[in-house]
Amino acid sequence: MASELTDLSRLCVHTITTKPWSIEEAASEFEAAGVKGITVWRDALTGRNIRQAGNMLREHQLDIISLCRGGFFPSTDAGQRKRAIDDNKKAIDEARELGAPLVVLVCGADPGQSLEESRNQIQDGIAACLAHAEAAQVKLAIEPLHPMYADTRSAINTLAQANDMAEALQSSWVGIAADVYHLWWDPDLENQIRRCGRNGNLSAFHICDWKTPTLDLLNDRGLMGEGCIPIKKIRGWVEEAGFTGFHEVEIFSTIYWQQDQHNFLQKITNNYLKYS
Amino acid sequence: MASELTDLSRLCVHTITTKPWSIEEAASEFEAAGVKGITVWRDALTGRNIRQAGNMLREHQLDIISLCRGGFFPSTDAGQRKRAIDDNKKAIDEARELGAPLVVLVCGADPGQSLEESRNQIQDGIAACLAHAEAAQVKLAIEPLHPMYADTRSAINTLAQANDMAEALQSSWVGIAADVYHLWWDPDLENQIRRCGRNGNLSAFHICDWKTPTLDLLNDRGLMGEGCIPIKKIRGWVEEAGFTGFHEVEIFSTIYWQQDQHNFLQKITNNYLKYS
Repeated sequence: MASELTDLSRLCVHTITTKPWSIEEAASEFEAAGVKGITVWRDALTGRNIRQAGNMLREHQLDIISLCRGGFFPSTDAGQRKRAIDDNKKAIDEARELGAPLVVLVCGADPGQSLEESRNQIQDGIAACLAHAEAAQVKLAIEPLHPMYADTRSAINTLAQANDMAEALQSSWVGIAADVYHLWWDPDLENQIRRCGRNGNLSAFHICDWKTPTLDLLNDRGLMGEGCIPIKKIRGWVEEAGFTGFHEVEIFSTIYWQQDQHNFLQKITNNYLKYS
Repeated sequence: MASELTDLSRLCVHTITTKPWSIEEAASEFEAAGVKGITVWRDALTGRNIRQAGNMLREHQLDIISLCRGGFFPSTDAGQRKRAIDDNKKAIDEARELGAPLVVLVCGADPGQSLEESRNQIQDGIAACLAHAEAAQVKLAIEPLHPMYADTRSAINTLAQANDMAEALQSSWVGIAADVYHLWWDPDLENQIRRCGRNGNLSAFHICDWKTPTLDLLNDRGLMGEGCIPIKKIRGWVEEAGFTGFHEVEIFSTIYWQQDQHNFLQKITNNYLKYS
Protein backbone atom coordinates (compact mmCIF):
# COMPACT_ATOMS: atom_id res chain seq x y z
CA MET A 1 0.00 0.00 0.00
CA ALA A 2 1.29 3.46 -0.89
CA SER A 3 2.27 5.93 1.81
CA GLU A 4 -0.25 8.66 2.65
CA LEU A 5 -0.27 11.74 0.46
CA THR A 6 0.47 14.82 2.53
CA ASP A 7 0.61 17.59 -0.07
CA LEU A 8 -0.41 18.47 -3.62
CA SER A 9 3.09 18.49 -5.09
CA ARG A 10 2.30 15.59 -7.43
CA LEU A 11 -1.30 16.47 -8.20
CA CYS A 12 -2.15 17.13 -11.84
CA VAL A 13 -5.65 17.88 -13.13
CA HIS A 14 -6.82 17.41 -16.71
CA THR A 15 -8.50 20.38 -18.37
CA ILE A 16 -11.40 18.12 -19.31
CA THR A 17 -12.03 17.41 -15.61
CA THR A 18 -13.16 21.03 -15.25
CA LYS A 19 -14.48 21.26 -18.80
CA PRO A 20 -16.69 24.33 -18.27
CA TRP A 21 -13.56 26.42 -17.56
CA SER A 22 -11.42 27.93 -20.29
CA ILE A 23 -7.76 26.98 -20.09
CA GLU A 24 -7.03 30.46 -18.69
CA GLU A 25 -9.62 30.04 -15.90
CA ALA A 26 -8.34 26.52 -15.19
CA ALA A 27 -4.74 27.75 -14.94
CA SER A 28 -5.65 30.47 -12.48
CA GLU A 29 -7.92 28.26 -10.38
CA PHE A 30 -5.52 25.31 -10.37
CA GLU A 31 -2.69 27.55 -9.16
CA ALA A 32 -4.85 29.08 -6.44
CA ALA A 33 -5.89 25.59 -5.26
CA GLY A 34 -2.27 24.43 -5.08
CA VAL A 35 -2.46 22.04 -8.01
CA LYS A 36 1.01 21.63 -9.50
CA GLY A 37 0.43 19.92 -12.84
CA ILE A 38 -1.92 20.23 -15.78
CA THR A 39 -2.71 17.92 -18.67
CA VAL A 40 -4.17 19.81 -21.59
CA TRP A 41 -6.91 18.47 -23.85
CA ARG A 42 -6.57 19.72 -27.39
CA ASP A 43 -10.04 21.28 -27.44
CA ALA A 44 -8.91 23.63 -24.65
CA LEU A 45 -6.38 25.13 -27.07
CA THR A 46 -8.88 26.04 -29.78
CA GLY A 47 -8.27 29.59 -31.00
CA ARG A 48 -5.11 30.01 -28.87
CA ASN A 49 -1.52 30.46 -29.84
CA ILE A 50 -0.21 27.21 -28.41
CA ARG A 51 3.24 28.49 -27.50
CA GLN A 52 1.70 31.41 -25.61
CA ALA A 53 -0.73 29.05 -23.89
CA GLY A 54 2.24 26.99 -22.67
CA ASN A 55 3.92 30.11 -21.33
CA MET A 56 0.70 31.15 -19.62
CA LEU A 57 0.46 27.77 -17.86
CA ARG A 58 4.07 27.92 -16.69
CA GLU A 59 3.50 31.47 -15.38
CA HIS A 60 0.82 29.87 -13.18
CA GLN A 61 3.49 27.54 -11.77
CA LEU A 62 1.97 24.54 -13.54
CA ASP A 63 4.04 21.68 -14.91
CA ILE A 64 2.59 20.59 -18.25
CA ILE A 65 2.33 16.82 -17.95
CA SER A 66 0.81 15.76 -21.24
CA LEU A 67 -1.39 16.60 -24.19
CA CYS A 68 -4.61 14.60 -24.69
CA ARG A 69 -5.10 13.07 -27.07
CA GLY A 70 -3.80 11.40 -30.18
CA GLY A 71 -4.60 7.94 -31.43
CA PHE A 72 -7.69 6.65 -33.28
CA PHE A 73 -5.46 4.92 -35.82
CA PRO A 74 -7.70 2.04 -37.01
CA SER A 75 -10.14 2.36 -39.84
CA THR A 76 -11.44 0.14 -42.61
CA ASP A 77 -10.66 3.14 -44.87
CA ALA A 78 -6.99 3.54 -45.83
CA GLY A 79 -7.46 7.26 -46.45
CA GLN A 80 -8.77 7.69 -42.92
CA ARG A 81 -5.79 5.77 -41.52
CA LYS A 82 -3.46 8.13 -43.37
CA ARG A 83 -5.34 11.16 -42.02
CA ALA A 84 -5.11 9.72 -38.49
CA ILE A 85 -1.33 9.46 -38.76
CA ASP A 86 -1.18 13.05 -40.01
CA ASP A 87 -3.33 14.17 -37.09
CA ASN A 88 -1.08 12.36 -34.63
CA LYS A 89 1.94 14.16 -36.09
CA LYS A 90 0.00 17.40 -35.64
CA ALA A 91 -0.67 16.46 -31.99
CA ILE A 92 3.06 15.86 -31.53
CA ASP A 93 3.77 19.32 -33.00
CA GLU A 94 1.19 20.85 -30.67
CA ALA A 95 2.76 19.12 -27.67
CA ARG A 96 6.17 20.46 -28.66
CA GLU A 97 4.75 23.98 -29.02
CA LEU A 98 2.97 23.70 -25.69
CA GLY A 99 5.98 22.24 -23.92
CA ALA A 100 4.27 18.94 -23.07
CA PRO A 101 6.65 15.96 -23.06
CA LEU A 102 3.92 13.39 -23.73
CA VAL A 103 0.96 12.78 -26.03
CA VAL A 104 -1.60 10.31 -24.65
CA LEU A 105 -2.99 7.90 -27.25
CA VAL A 106 -6.57 6.68 -27.22
CA CYS A 107 -5.60 4.12 -29.79
CA GLY A 108 -8.94 3.59 -31.51
CA ALA A 109 -10.90 0.66 -32.97
CA ASP A 110 -13.19 0.23 -35.94
CA PRO A 111 -16.25 -1.97 -35.29
CA GLY A 112 -16.28 -2.81 -39.00
CA GLN A 113 -13.19 -4.99 -38.70
CA SER A 114 -11.68 -7.47 -36.24
CA LEU A 115 -9.94 -6.36 -33.08
CA GLU A 116 -6.79 -8.08 -34.37
CA GLU A 117 -6.85 -5.92 -37.51
CA SER A 118 -7.43 -2.79 -35.43
CA ARG A 119 -4.49 -3.74 -33.20
CA ASN A 120 -2.22 -4.20 -36.21
CA GLN A 121 -3.26 -0.79 -37.53
CA ILE A 122 -2.58 0.79 -34.13
CA GLN A 123 0.91 -0.63 -34.06
CA ASP A 124 1.57 0.46 -37.65
CA GLY A 125 0.15 3.91 -36.93
CA ILE A 126 2.34 4.46 -33.89
CA ALA A 127 5.38 3.17 -35.76
CA ALA A 128 4.68 5.69 -38.53
CA CYS A 129 4.82 8.53 -35.99
CA LEU A 130 7.99 7.57 -34.13
CA ALA A 131 10.51 9.54 -36.20
CA HIS A 132 8.29 12.59 -35.85
CA ALA A 133 8.03 12.03 -32.09
CA GLU A 134 11.77 11.70 -31.74
CA ALA A 135 12.43 14.84 -33.79
CA ALA A 136 10.01 16.74 -31.54
CA GLN A 137 11.31 15.05 -28.37
CA VAL A 138 7.73 14.15 -27.48
CA LYS A 139 6.83 10.70 -26.17
CA LEU A 140 3.68 8.79 -27.14
CA ALA A 141 1.79 6.98 -24.37
CA ILE A 142 -0.43 4.02 -25.23
CA GLU A 143 -3.43 4.13 -22.89
CA PRO A 144 -5.16 0.79 -22.50
CA LEU A 145 -8.90 1.45 -22.31
CA HIS A 146 -11.62 -0.45 -20.46
CA PRO A 147 -13.06 -3.35 -22.48
CA MET A 148 -16.39 -1.50 -22.68
CA TYR A 149 -14.65 0.79 -25.21
CA ALA A 150 -13.37 -2.00 -27.45
CA ASP A 151 -15.89 -1.27 -30.21
CA THR A 152 -14.75 2.22 -31.22
CA ARG A 153 -12.28 3.76 -28.76
CA SER A 154 -9.51 1.23 -28.28
CA ALA A 155 -8.66 -2.31 -29.24
CA ILE A 156 -5.98 -2.19 -26.51
CA ASN A 157 -7.97 -3.15 -23.42
CA THR A 158 -5.50 -4.48 -20.88
CA LEU A 159 -2.16 -3.36 -19.56
CA ALA A 160 -0.73 -6.67 -20.81
CA GLN A 161 -1.68 -5.71 -24.37
CA ALA A 162 -0.20 -2.23 -23.95
CA ASN A 163 2.98 -3.78 -22.55
CA ASP A 164 3.17 -6.19 -25.49
CA MET A 165 2.81 -3.35 -27.98
CA ALA A 166 5.20 -0.96 -26.26
CA GLU A 167 7.80 -3.72 -26.08
CA ALA A 168 7.26 -4.69 -29.72
CA LEU A 169 7.75 -1.08 -30.85
CA GLN A 170 11.10 -0.94 -29.03
CA SER A 171 11.37 2.83 -28.92
CA SER A 172 12.24 5.20 -26.12
CA TRP A 173 9.54 7.45 -27.64
CA VAL A 174 6.76 5.03 -26.69
CA GLY A 175 5.40 4.56 -23.18
CA ILE A 176 2.12 3.73 -21.44
CA ALA A 177 -0.51 5.75 -19.59
CA ALA A 178 -2.07 3.63 -16.81
CA ASP A 179 -5.54 4.77 -15.75
CA VAL A 180 -7.18 3.10 -12.75
CA TYR A 181 -10.64 3.50 -14.32
CA HIS A 182 -9.71 1.29 -17.23
CA LEU A 183 -7.57 -1.25 -15.40
CA TRP A 184 -8.82 -1.75 -11.84
CA TRP A 185 -10.81 -4.93 -12.55
CA ASP A 186 -7.86 -6.84 -14.08
CA PRO A 187 -6.66 -9.75 -11.93
CA ASP A 188 -3.23 -9.47 -13.56
CA LEU A 189 -2.83 -5.75 -12.87
CA GLU A 190 -0.12 -5.86 -10.21
CA ASN A 191 2.09 -8.10 -12.37
CA GLN A 192 1.58 -6.00 -15.45
CA ILE A 193 2.37 -2.75 -13.62
CA ARG A 194 5.59 -4.33 -12.39
CA ARG A 195 6.43 -5.40 -15.95
CA CYS A 196 5.56 -1.93 -17.28
CA GLY A 197 7.90 -0.25 -14.80
CA ARG A 198 10.68 -2.78 -15.27
CA ASN A 199 10.72 -2.10 -19.00
CA GLY A 200 10.73 1.66 -18.52
CA ASN A 201 7.29 2.10 -20.05
CA LEU A 202 5.26 3.55 -17.16
CA SER A 203 4.86 7.13 -18.39
CA ALA A 204 1.64 8.41 -16.80
CA PHE A 205 -0.80 7.54 -14.02
CA HIS A 206 -4.44 8.66 -14.16
CA ILE A 207 -6.94 8.48 -11.31
CA CYS A 208 -10.67 8.78 -10.68
CA ASP A 209 -13.22 6.28 -9.34
CA TRP A 210 -15.82 3.76 -10.53
CA LYS A 211 -19.29 4.63 -9.20
CA THR A 212 -22.04 2.17 -8.34
CA PRO A 213 -24.24 2.48 -10.26
CA THR A 214 -22.46 3.90 -13.29
CA LEU A 215 -25.19 5.58 -15.30
CA ASP A 216 -23.34 6.31 -18.51
CA LEU A 217 -20.55 4.47 -20.33
CA LEU A 218 -18.63 7.68 -21.04
CA ASN A 219 -19.40 10.54 -18.70
CA ASP A 220 -20.21 9.21 -15.25
CA ARG A 221 -16.80 8.77 -13.66
CA GLY A 222 -16.51 9.32 -9.94
CA LEU A 223 -14.30 11.45 -7.76
CA MET A 224 -11.67 9.52 -5.83
CA GLY A 225 -13.39 7.94 -2.81
CA GLU A 226 -16.82 7.78 -4.41
CA GLY A 227 -16.40 4.32 -5.82
CA CYS A 228 -14.82 0.90 -5.53
CA ILE A 229 -11.42 1.32 -7.19
CA PRO A 230 -8.57 0.56 -4.76
CA ILE A 231 -6.69 3.69 -5.88
CA LYS A 232 -4.21 3.73 -3.02
CA LYS A 233 -3.32 0.08 -3.53
CA ILE A 234 -2.79 0.61 -7.26
CA ARG A 235 -0.74 3.77 -6.60
CA GLY A 236 1.42 1.64 -4.31
CA TRP A 237 2.06 -0.84 -7.15
CA VAL A 238 2.81 2.01 -9.55
CA GLU A 239 5.31 3.59 -7.16
CA GLU A 240 6.93 0.25 -6.33
CA ALA A 241 7.40 -0.10 -10.09
CA GLY A 242 9.50 3.06 -10.02
CA PHE A 243 7.00 5.70 -11.11
CA THR A 244 7.75 9.13 -9.62
CA GLY A 245 5.53 11.29 -11.85
CA PHE A 246 2.26 13.11 -11.28
CA HIS A 247 -1.09 11.67 -10.23
CA GLU A 248 -3.45 12.95 -12.88
CA VAL A 249 -7.13 13.45 -12.07
CA GLU A 250 -9.13 12.74 -15.19
CA ILE A 251 -12.87 12.75 -14.55
CA PHE A 252 -15.51 12.86 -17.28
CA SER A 253 -18.75 13.62 -15.48
CA THR A 254 -21.88 15.26 -16.76
CA ILE A 255 -22.95 15.58 -13.14
CA TYR A 256 -19.82 17.41 -11.99
CA TRP A 257 -19.64 19.56 -15.12
CA GLN A 258 -23.08 20.93 -14.21
CA GLN A 259 -21.88 21.97 -10.74
CA ASP A 260 -19.83 24.93 -9.55
CA GLN A 261 -16.30 24.13 -10.76
CA HIS A 262 -14.59 25.98 -7.96
CA ASN A 263 -16.31 23.77 -5.37
CA PHE A 264 -15.59 20.72 -7.50
CA LEU A 265 -11.88 21.55 -7.56
CA GLN A 266 -11.91 21.84 -3.77
CA LYS A 267 -13.46 18.37 -3.59
CA ILE A 268 -10.77 17.10 -5.94
CA THR A 269 -7.91 18.36 -3.78
CA ASN A 270 -9.58 17.11 -0.57
CA ASN A 271 -10.42 13.68 -1.94
CA TYR A 272 -7.05 13.38 -3.65
CA LEU A 273 -5.30 13.59 -0.28
CA LYS A 274 -7.80 11.32 1.44
CA TYR A 275 -8.50 8.57 -1.07
CA SER A 276 -5.62 8.40 -3.57
CA MET B 1 -14.85 -20.34 -38.68
CA ALA B 2 -17.96 -22.32 -37.86
CA SER B 3 -20.03 -23.92 -40.59
CA GLU B 4 -23.23 -22.11 -41.63
CA LEU B 5 -26.34 -22.70 -39.55
CA THR B 6 -29.07 -24.18 -41.69
CA ASP B 7 -31.84 -24.83 -39.18
CA LEU B 8 -33.09 -23.93 -35.73
CA SER B 9 -32.41 -27.29 -34.12
CA ARG B 10 -29.85 -25.80 -31.71
CA LEU B 11 -31.55 -22.46 -31.12
CA CYS B 12 -32.53 -21.66 -27.54
CA VAL B 13 -34.10 -18.38 -26.43
CA HIS B 14 -34.04 -17.01 -22.88
CA THR B 15 -37.37 -15.99 -21.40
CA ILE B 16 -35.86 -12.60 -20.51
CA THR B 17 -35.15 -11.97 -24.20
CA THR B 18 -38.90 -11.70 -24.74
CA LYS B 19 -39.58 -10.34 -21.26
CA PRO B 20 -43.05 -8.90 -21.99
CA TRP B 21 -44.35 -12.44 -22.64
CA SER B 22 -45.46 -14.77 -19.88
CA ILE B 23 -43.69 -18.13 -19.89
CA GLU B 24 -46.88 -19.64 -21.36
CA GLU B 25 -46.93 -17.14 -24.24
CA ALA B 26 -43.20 -17.61 -24.77
CA ALA B 27 -43.58 -21.40 -24.92
CA SER B 28 -46.33 -21.22 -27.50
CA GLU B 29 -44.58 -18.57 -29.62
CA PHE B 30 -41.19 -20.26 -29.43
CA GLU B 31 -42.67 -23.55 -30.59
CA ALA B 32 -44.52 -21.87 -33.46
CA ALA B 33 -41.31 -20.13 -34.57
CA GLY B 34 -39.37 -23.40 -34.56
CA VAL B 35 -37.20 -22.58 -31.55
CA LYS B 36 -36.11 -25.82 -29.90
CA GLY B 37 -34.72 -24.77 -26.53
CA ILE B 38 -35.65 -22.44 -23.70
CA THR B 39 -33.71 -21.05 -20.77
CA VAL B 40 -35.99 -19.96 -17.98
CA TRP B 41 -35.38 -16.93 -15.81
CA ARG B 42 -36.68 -17.41 -12.29
CA ASP B 43 -38.98 -14.36 -12.44
CA ALA B 44 -40.90 -16.09 -15.26
CA LEU B 45 -41.88 -18.81 -12.77
CA THR B 46 -43.44 -16.48 -10.22
CA GLY B 47 -46.80 -17.83 -9.11
CA ARG B 48 -46.44 -21.07 -11.12
CA ASN B 49 -46.12 -24.64 -10.00
CA ILE B 50 -42.61 -25.26 -11.24
CA ARG B 51 -43.06 -28.94 -12.08
CA GLN B 52 -46.16 -28.13 -14.11
CA ALA B 53 -44.31 -25.29 -15.85
CA GLY B 54 -41.61 -27.76 -16.87
CA ASN B 55 -44.21 -30.15 -18.24
CA MET B 56 -45.88 -27.30 -20.13
CA LEU B 57 -42.57 -26.38 -21.79
CA ARG B 58 -41.87 -29.98 -22.79
CA GLU B 59 -45.37 -30.24 -24.26
CA HIS B 60 -44.35 -27.36 -26.51
CA GLN B 61 -41.40 -29.48 -27.73
CA LEU B 62 -38.91 -27.28 -25.92
CA ASP B 63 -35.71 -28.59 -24.36
CA ILE B 64 -35.12 -26.84 -21.06
CA ILE B 65 -31.49 -25.75 -21.23
CA SER B 66 -30.94 -23.91 -17.98
CA LEU B 67 -32.38 -21.87 -15.15
CA CYS B 68 -31.16 -18.27 -14.73
CA ARG B 69 -29.89 -17.38 -12.31
CA GLY B 70 -28.09 -18.17 -9.11
CA GLY B 71 -24.95 -16.56 -7.76
CA PHE B 72 -24.46 -13.21 -6.01
CA PHE B 73 -22.39 -14.90 -3.32
CA PRO B 74 -20.14 -12.04 -2.12
CA SER B 75 -21.11 -9.64 0.60
CA THR B 76 -19.36 -7.78 3.38
CA ASP B 77 -22.18 -9.14 5.56
CA ALA B 78 -21.81 -12.77 6.66
CA GLY B 79 -25.57 -13.14 7.13
CA GLN B 80 -26.13 -12.08 3.54
CA ARG B 81 -23.53 -14.58 2.33
CA LYS B 82 -25.41 -17.32 4.18
CA ARG B 83 -28.71 -16.20 2.65
CA ALA B 84 -27.09 -16.23 -0.80
CA ILE B 85 -26.02 -19.85 -0.35
CA ASP B 86 -29.54 -20.76 0.77
CA ASP B 87 -30.98 -19.00 -2.27
CA ASN B 88 -28.61 -20.89 -4.57
CA LYS B 89 -29.76 -24.18 -3.06
CA LYS B 90 -33.32 -23.03 -3.69
CA ALA B 91 -32.41 -22.29 -7.32
CA ILE B 92 -30.97 -25.79 -7.61
CA ASP B 93 -34.24 -27.21 -6.23
CA GLU B 94 -36.21 -25.12 -8.72
CA ALA B 95 -34.05 -26.36 -11.59
CA ARG B 96 -34.65 -29.96 -10.52
CA GLU B 97 -38.41 -29.34 -10.32
CA LEU B 98 -38.38 -27.67 -13.72
CA GLY B 99 -36.21 -30.33 -15.30
CA ALA B 100 -33.34 -27.95 -16.12
CA PRO B 101 -29.90 -29.59 -15.92
CA LEU B 102 -28.03 -26.35 -15.29
CA VAL B 103 -28.21 -23.24 -13.09
CA VAL B 104 -26.31 -20.24 -14.49
CA LEU B 105 -24.40 -18.28 -11.88
CA VAL B 106 -23.99 -14.52 -12.01
CA CYS B 107 -21.41 -14.79 -9.33
CA GLY B 108 -21.67 -11.36 -7.72
CA ALA B 109 -19.33 -8.75 -6.25
CA ASP B 110 -19.55 -6.32 -3.37
CA PRO B 111 -18.05 -2.87 -4.06
CA GLY B 112 -17.41 -2.52 -0.35
CA GLN B 113 -14.58 -5.06 -0.45
CA SER B 114 -11.72 -6.06 -2.74
CA LEU B 115 -12.27 -8.11 -5.86
CA GLU B 116 -9.94 -10.75 -4.38
CA GLU B 117 -12.21 -11.07 -1.33
CA SER B 118 -15.30 -11.27 -3.53
CA ARG B 119 -13.62 -13.99 -5.60
CA ASN B 120 -12.80 -15.99 -2.48
CA GLN B 121 -16.41 -15.71 -1.32
CA ILE B 122 -17.65 -16.83 -4.74
CA GLN B 123 -15.49 -19.92 -4.62
CA ASP B 124 -16.55 -20.68 -1.04
CA GLY B 125 -20.20 -20.11 -1.94
CA ILE B 126 -20.12 -22.45 -4.90
CA ALA B 127 -18.27 -25.07 -2.85
CA ALA B 128 -21.00 -24.86 -0.20
CA CYS B 129 -23.63 -25.72 -2.83
CA LEU B 130 -21.91 -28.66 -4.52
CA ALA B 131 -23.36 -31.47 -2.43
CA HIS B 132 -26.82 -30.01 -2.97
CA ALA B 133 -26.16 -29.76 -6.72
CA GLU B 134 -24.99 -33.36 -6.90
CA ALA B 135 -27.99 -34.62 -4.93
CA ALA B 136 -30.28 -32.76 -7.34
CA GLN B 137 -28.21 -33.76 -10.39
CA VAL B 138 -28.09 -30.11 -11.41
CA LYS B 139 -24.88 -28.49 -12.63
CA LEU B 140 -23.76 -24.97 -11.73
CA ALA B 141 -22.30 -22.81 -14.51
CA ILE B 142 -19.95 -19.97 -13.65
CA GLU B 143 -20.63 -17.14 -16.10
CA PRO B 144 -17.73 -14.71 -16.47
CA LEU B 145 -19.20 -11.23 -16.84
CA HIS B 146 -17.88 -8.23 -18.74
CA PRO B 147 -15.45 -6.11 -16.69
CA MET B 148 -17.99 -3.27 -16.68
CA TYR B 149 -19.95 -5.38 -14.17
CA ALA B 150 -17.05 -5.93 -11.77
CA ASP B 151 -18.43 -3.56 -9.14
CA THR B 152 -21.62 -5.41 -8.23
CA ARG B 153 -22.47 -8.24 -10.63
CA SER B 154 -19.38 -10.39 -10.90
CA ALA B 155 -15.78 -10.39 -9.78
CA ILE B 156 -15.18 -13.11 -12.39
CA ASN B 157 -14.56 -11.07 -15.53
CA THR B 158 -12.60 -13.26 -17.93
CA LEU B 159 -12.89 -16.82 -19.13
CA ALA B 160 -9.41 -17.41 -17.70
CA GLN B 161 -10.70 -16.59 -14.23
CA ALA B 162 -13.74 -18.82 -14.70
CA ASN B 163 -11.48 -21.63 -15.92
CA ASP B 164 -9.21 -21.17 -12.89
CA MET B 165 -12.15 -21.36 -10.52
CA ALA B 166 -13.88 -24.29 -12.21
CA GLU B 167 -10.60 -26.23 -12.19
CA ALA B 168 -9.94 -25.34 -8.55
CA LEU B 169 -13.39 -26.59 -7.52
CA GLN B 170 -12.71 -29.95 -9.20
CA SER B 171 -16.32 -31.06 -9.42
CA SER B 172 -18.30 -32.55 -12.24
CA TRP B 173 -21.16 -30.36 -10.94
CA VAL B 174 -19.39 -27.13 -11.92
CA GLY B 175 -19.08 -25.82 -15.46
CA ILE B 176 -18.93 -22.51 -17.30
CA ALA B 177 -21.41 -20.45 -19.34
CA ALA B 178 -19.58 -18.55 -22.10
CA ASP B 179 -21.41 -15.47 -23.36
CA VAL B 180 -20.02 -13.59 -26.37
CA TYR B 181 -21.26 -10.26 -24.97
CA HIS B 182 -19.01 -10.59 -21.94
CA LEU B 183 -15.99 -12.16 -23.59
CA TRP B 184 -15.62 -10.95 -27.19
CA TRP B 185 -12.99 -8.26 -26.45
CA ASP B 186 -10.56 -10.67 -24.73
CA PRO B 187 -7.35 -11.25 -26.72
CA ASP B 188 -6.93 -14.60 -24.96
CA LEU B 189 -10.44 -15.86 -25.76
CA GLU B 190 -9.61 -18.55 -28.29
CA ASN B 191 -7.03 -20.13 -25.98
CA GLN B 192 -9.33 -20.00 -22.99
CA ILE B 193 -12.23 -21.55 -24.90
CA ARG B 194 -9.93 -24.38 -25.94
CA ARG B 195 -8.84 -24.85 -22.31
CA CYS B 196 -12.46 -24.73 -21.14
CA GLY B 197 -13.48 -27.45 -23.55
CA ARG B 198 -10.42 -29.60 -22.89
CA ASN B 199 -11.23 -29.65 -19.18
CA GLY B 200 -14.86 -30.52 -19.79
CA ASN B 201 -16.14 -27.22 -18.43
CA LEU B 202 -17.87 -25.67 -21.45
CA SER B 203 -21.49 -26.04 -20.36
CA ALA B 204 -23.39 -23.25 -22.12
CA PHE B 205 -22.98 -20.77 -24.98
CA HIS B 206 -24.89 -17.45 -25.01
CA ILE B 207 -25.14 -15.09 -27.98
CA CYS B 208 -26.24 -11.54 -28.77
CA ASP B 209 -24.31 -8.54 -30.15
CA TRP B 210 -22.49 -5.39 -28.97
CA LYS B 211 -24.05 -2.27 -30.47
CA THR B 212 -22.22 0.94 -31.37
CA PRO B 213 -23.09 3.08 -29.56
CA THR B 214 -24.22 1.11 -26.51
CA LEU B 215 -26.55 3.47 -24.67
CA ASP B 216 -26.98 1.61 -21.40
CA LEU B 217 -24.65 -0.63 -19.41
CA LEU B 218 -27.38 -3.20 -18.73
CA ASN B 219 -30.23 -3.16 -21.20
CA ASP B 220 -28.97 -2.19 -24.63
CA ARG B 221 -27.72 -5.46 -26.06
CA GLY B 222 -28.04 -6.00 -29.77
CA LEU B 223 -29.53 -8.70 -31.94
CA MET B 224 -26.97 -10.88 -33.68
CA GLY B 225 -25.68 -8.97 -36.71
CA GLU B 226 -26.36 -5.53 -35.26
CA GLY B 227 -22.95 -5.10 -33.72
CA CYS B 228 -19.27 -5.91 -33.84
CA ILE B 229 -19.00 -9.25 -32.03
CA PRO B 230 -17.51 -11.94 -34.31
CA ILE B 231 -20.18 -14.43 -33.22
CA LYS B 232 -19.56 -16.96 -35.97
CA LYS B 233 -15.83 -16.99 -35.30
CA ILE B 234 -16.38 -17.50 -31.58
CA ARG B 235 -18.98 -20.22 -32.25
CA GLY B 236 -16.32 -21.91 -34.37
CA TRP B 237 -13.89 -21.90 -31.44
CA VAL B 238 -16.61 -23.19 -29.10
CA GLU B 239 -17.48 -26.04 -31.43
CA GLU B 240 -13.83 -26.91 -32.07
CA ALA B 241 -13.56 -27.16 -28.30
CA GLY B 242 -16.16 -29.93 -28.38
CA PHE B 243 -19.33 -28.04 -27.49
CA THR B 244 -22.43 -29.58 -29.05
CA GLY B 245 -25.12 -27.84 -27.01
CA PHE B 246 -27.60 -25.08 -27.76
CA HIS B 247 -26.91 -21.53 -28.92
CA GLU B 248 -28.80 -19.42 -26.40
CA VAL B 249 -30.06 -16.00 -27.40
CA GLU B 250 -29.95 -13.77 -24.33
CA ILE B 251 -30.77 -10.16 -25.14
CA PHE B 252 -31.56 -7.51 -22.53
CA SER B 253 -32.96 -4.60 -24.50
CA THR B 254 -35.30 -1.86 -23.40
CA ILE B 255 -35.68 -1.00 -27.08
CA TYR B 256 -36.75 -4.51 -28.17
CA TRP B 257 -38.91 -5.06 -25.09
CA GLN B 258 -40.98 -2.05 -26.21
CA GLN B 259 -41.58 -3.56 -29.65
CA ASP B 260 -43.94 -6.27 -30.86
CA GLN B 261 -42.45 -9.49 -29.46
CA HIS B 262 -43.75 -11.66 -32.26
CA ASN B 263 -41.85 -9.58 -34.85
CA PHE B 264 -38.83 -9.51 -32.57
CA LEU B 265 -38.81 -13.31 -32.38
CA GLN B 266 -38.93 -13.47 -36.18
CA LYS B 267 -35.89 -11.20 -36.31
CA ILE B 268 -34.16 -13.46 -33.79
CA THR B 269 -34.66 -16.59 -35.87
CA ASN B 270 -33.66 -14.80 -39.11
CA ASN B 271 -30.58 -13.16 -37.66
CA TYR B 272 -29.60 -16.33 -35.81
CA LEU B 273 -29.29 -18.19 -39.10
CA LYS B 274 -27.56 -15.30 -40.87
CA TYR B 275 -25.14 -13.93 -38.26
CA SER B 276 -24.45 -16.60 -35.64
